[in-house]
Amino acid sequence: VKIAILGVGLIGGSIGLAARRRAGARVCGYDPDPRAGAAALELGAIDEQAPDIAAAVAGAQVVFAAAPVGVLAETVREALALAGADCVVSDVGSTKLALQDAREDVRFVGGHPLAGAETAGVEHAREDLFEGATWYLTPAPSADRELYARLCDVIERLGALPAEIEADAHDRLMARISHLPHVLANVLVLQAAEAFEREDKPLAGGQPAGGPGLRDTIRVAGANTAIWTDIYLANREALIEAIEQAIGGLEDVRAALLHADASALATWNERARAARMKLLGGDTPPTAAAP
Amino acid sequence: VKIAILGVGLIGGSIGLAARRRAGARVCGYDPDPRAGAAALELGAIDEQAPDIAAAVAGAQVVFAAAPVGVLAETVREALALAGADCVVSDVGSTKLALQDAREDVRFVGGHPLAGAETAGVEHAREDLFEGATWYLTPAPSADRELYARLCDVIERLGALPAEIEADAHDRLMARISHLPHVLANVLVLQAAEAFEREDKPLAGGQPAGGPGLRDTIRVAGANTAIWTDIYLANREALIEAIEQAIGGLEDVRAALLHADASALATWNERARAARMKLLGGDTPPTAAAP
Repeated sequence: VKIAILGVGLIGGSIGLAARRRAGARVCGYDPDPRAGAAALELGAIDEQAPDIAAAVAGAQVVFAAAPVGVLAETVREALALAGADCVVSDVGSTKLALQDAREDVRFVGGHPLAGAETAGVEHAREDLFEGATWYLTPAPSADRELYARLCDVIERLGALPAEIEADAHDRLMARISHLPHVLANVLVLQAAEAFEREDKPLAGGQPAGGPGLRDTIRVAGANTAIWTDIYLANREALIEAIEQAIGGLEDVRAALLHADASALATWNERARAARMKLLGGDTPPTAAAP
Repeated sequence: VKIAILGVGLIGGSIGLAARRRAGARVCGYDPDPRAGAAALELGAIDEQAPDIAAAVAGAQVVFAAAPVGVLAETVREALALAGADCVVSDVGSTKLALQDAREDVRFVGGHPLAGAETAGVEHAREDLFEGATWYLTPAPSADRELYARLCDVIERLGALPAEIEADAHDRLMARISHLPHVLANVLVLQAAEAFEREDKPLAGGQPAGGPGLRDTIRVAGANTAIWTDIYLANREALIEAIEQAIGGLEDVRAALLHADASALATWNERARAARMKLLGGDTPPTAAAP
């Protein structure tokens, strides 16, 4: 199978590594930055560096558009215009309604692997990045099911778990499990930093500030500004809804505190505890007062 | 030096281990649950198990009250009533204004180590739990400075970094760097779990849900209900203020999204990025789109 990867950064590069080593695929990569393409070639993430999208998708059976959200729609459009009839075109963008136009093409299937790392760039690509990760797929009702099956097969070989979901349900879900966490981490880190300044507590040199609770909670704060501004805007409707729901949740806690309502706080915390167990599976819930 | 520890759980037990091994102290422990005391003795966290507070503090130069927040004030009051004139009494509670009465005694110095773990109980106690951790101390202006210096010395020997701060400043700071993170994690985990249910996406068996961003952000959710209900209530004024500030922050983001204001979102994210670098020190900020 020949796989084309358009955009060889962390995600595209990791797809390439896994596709070559685990799926025995021939991988052709294109990146608007030729240095990224050359690095991918040197790292073994691709077999061949294409000079343009046309050359990359020529003869490919599977295309992954792994460009940043801001240029993703255009990349997918070009890929569909240039790819053959027997080729499935997918992407790895974190919002799926944004690619509405492409969904009219039976060869297109939107995708989104729930994987990533704190560092961008092909030099951080890993063959096992998708190991055990959910990989959402949002085929339109009109999508070609044979091409869809081929895409699922490749994704499974990469080590991921393909999961079909409607595009709008995907975007609402992501607003709550990915975009809102980033927004809350930003809100929190700004407030914490301001508090350290206001109380005139200079941070101990070299030591991370606060306890493990703070450090976990703000780890995703301040993610790449260009990428995340695009993501927030691409999913703004669902994200606004999620933010309003979070404000409602905070107002409930505020009311319980105003009334010193221990029972309401305890019930709320127990619900959170059950939800955490459900989401994090076997991971031990915190029982101690780790700050 | 003889050190008394009142309450030998995770924190009290870790103080005992470090005090015995690193400060060469003789450690006497008391716990209302005799099994916890016996376990502490067996683990080497204390030299001696006292039958009551009076026996524990008899002849001690330093007392650490490491009881849960709900019974902490009473434990400190008893310790001060029973300890000698040349004895410093401290605690490890996560709010400091709550022990206002004790502050009138020159032998009392409120304390709070920024350390903890996801698991409670003396069986998880570790000699190195406080290694490099900030240990806030909130002496009243009237506190005996000689006793205070002795306490600092012991804390340094445990491996921690003593840092003096006003009790009210401490509580405002904790509201933002510890209590609010827990509140936000709860709000988030409830919303995420509800979203998975609403979109009818059963969680993959055994696999943690969502991406690394979600998992980090909700790690402290649903912490021990009894402990945390007490903590939230003990610091309710400062926490209400912090929650209102967080709501304000969320409303700003919501407004930027409503107006599709990319520049406002980018500026906000850059500020969060700078704050994160400042708080997490050398830790790499996330640049990729890890969900």
